[in-house]
Amino acid sequence: MKERIVVGVDLGGTFIKFGMFQTSGKLLKKWQVPTDNSGPEATLAQIASEVVKSCQAEGYQQDRIEGVGIGVPGSVDRHGMLISAPNLGWSMLDVRQEMKKHLDLPVAIANDANVAALGEQYFGAGEGCDSMVMITLGTGVGGGVIINQRLVAGAFGGAGEIGHLVMNDAETVPCTCGNRGCLEQYASATGIARVARTLLEEKMAANGGKQVSGLQAYDTITAKEVFDEVKAGDELAMEVAEQFGRTLGKALSYVASVVDPEMFVIGGGVSAAGEVLLHYMEKYYSSYAFAPSKHTPIRLARLGNDAGIYGAARLILLQ
Amino acid sequence: MKERIVVGVDLGGTFIKFGMFQTSGKLLKKWQVPTDNSGPEATLAQIASEVVKSCQAEGYQQDRIEGVGIGVPGSVDRHGMLISAPNLGWSMLDVRQEMKKHLDLPVAIANDANVAALGEQYFGAGEGCDSMVMITLGTGVGGGVIINQRLVAGAFGGAGEIGHLVMNDAETVPCTCGNRGCLEQYASATGIARVARTLLEEKMAANGGKQVSGLQAYDTITAKEVFDEVKAGDELAMEVAEQFGRTLGKALSYVASVVDPEMFVIGGGVSAAGEVLLHYMEKYYSSYAFAPSKHTPIRLARLGNDAGIYGAARLILLQ
Repeated sequence: MKERIVVGVDLGGTFIKFGMFQTSGKLLKKWQVPTDNSGPEATLAQIASEVVKSCQAEGYQQDRIEGVGIGVPGSVDRHGMLISAPNLGWSMLDVRQEMKKHLDLPVAIANDANVAALGEQYFGAGEGCDSMVMITLGTGVGGGVIINQRLVAGAFGGAGEIGHLVMNDAETVPCTCGNRGCLEQYASATGIARVARTLLEEKMAANGGKQVSGLQAYDTITAKEVFDEVKAGDELAMEVAEQFGRTLGKALSYVASVVDPEMFVIGGGVSAAGEVLLHYMEKYYSSYAFAPSKHTPIRLARLGNDAGIYGAARLILLQ
Repeated sequence: MKERIVVGVDLGGTFIKFGMFQTSGKLLKKWQVPTDNSGPEATLAQIASEVVKSCQAEGYQQDRIEGVGIGVPGSVDRHGMLISAPNLGWSMLDVRQEMKKHLDLPVAIANDANVAALGEQYFGAGEGCDSMVMITLGTGVGGGVIINQRLVAGAFGGAGEIGHLVMNDAETVPCTCGNRGCLEQYASATGIARVARTLLEEKMAANGGKQVSGLQAYDTITAKEVFDEVKAGDELAMEVAEQFGRTLGKALSYVASVVDPEMFVIGGGVSAAGEVLLHYMEKYYSSYAFAPSKHTPIRLARLGNDAGIYGAARLILLQ
């Protein structure tokens, strides 16, 4: 029997990433193209044409492709309907139906953070786990919940949206979602930088503008600088890291009380800070978590930006 | 082919409840016996003997029994191992293995709150739902999470333990689990009564012992009296109900951000107060919940004390 392949697609607002995989999960080739942003029709036609063209170039005709999995930056309900994808400007779209116009192949879609979780569970840090929750710390905070090796999409596409757990009723600054005090406001790259800037301004004001932290040396403070300064022993940066760890650790304890996964995996740009992140999360997590889940391992993601294409391929392999 | 039956068992510290069901899920007979508390061996032998004896009395020999499902008051891990059951004084017990000594039949076990959820999802308020989360408001607060019609037990037996979400870092009174500020301290029957008594004492002290609430008329305040007074328009009781609704509604918003179920079902003794409970929960739930899950229905349980035997039977039907 001729070898069959699957294609995993990670659809972003700027780039579309593609991965061509053997059905065993072995990555054969990966590539990316700038997203054609002129509307859903054009973007989906672009995906279909890229898949066919690149597979043919590798010697795989359409009948050798098992299917195409797509991770989309938006909520997908339990029927596979894309509810909304704000970054693409799309809403209420039956992506699988639309793709049929361009490609006569099985298509599966899911939310991109969920798909990344599936990639990590099968091919990355969560390899061998039946259940896993991945938290993606990027511009926002996303998440993906895997139970019995399958994604939990949620009845209304809201599963794994842990960035919007309301963690602080006293917050005065609104979150992008309209609520106040969401986890994302403290644990995303943007949130960590915001907390650091606010604290720095407070401390500088209280000290008449004198040197209070190594963070003052930077023109722009990002999460990277905060954790670099934590590693250098800067007290203010460590205070920011404590707040990050307390808020995220507590949120993970909530997740554990609902689904009690075998493992947590931390990904996204912020996770580049490394093991130091885990230190701050673990101590708060274990103090808040209920007895059975107190020692759930928290690990760093391993697939980086490839988690999306791996997970999207896995969507097809699971069908 | 001769009709086959399944037996659902709800093992409690005081009584063991049994239900004999057709494989269609139709209840043929239910009964209960006082629990033989002289140790796991004796209790399990008692269950086996009741099953065989009662089935025979109804004309069903052992070869007509499809299996026995048991809900146990403790944590059960993903391998079916009972980790601990404090009310029975049991720990680390392979119940299925032990039952084999007494009964040559398939046996399935799960945590009792989880099993009750399964009963409601299949035969009660959640009929027709693929996913559902049930919250049991009794002496404590228990929960059960159903995804794709199956129970989520959790990797370490901690799934659905939402009674121990830490909701209030400022709490000074410890919870039975050792933490402070757990949901259970505000939303269980015990918790509601405690909040009411504390508030009543405060208001009475501030008013020189004068009449401040209809709750003063009772020798003992329980959750029932609180909600009776809410229905009568008592202001203090309504304040207690607001705190109940705010804490539980917020906790449900956390659950929705993790698994986004089709429905929430509220059971346990406190749920006897009826629709008034839902009113207080819904408004806070929808204000805290993230967009996709804002309108998830919250319903009252329908099976009452029978949820356990129905769900235990369902454990076998799912195998």
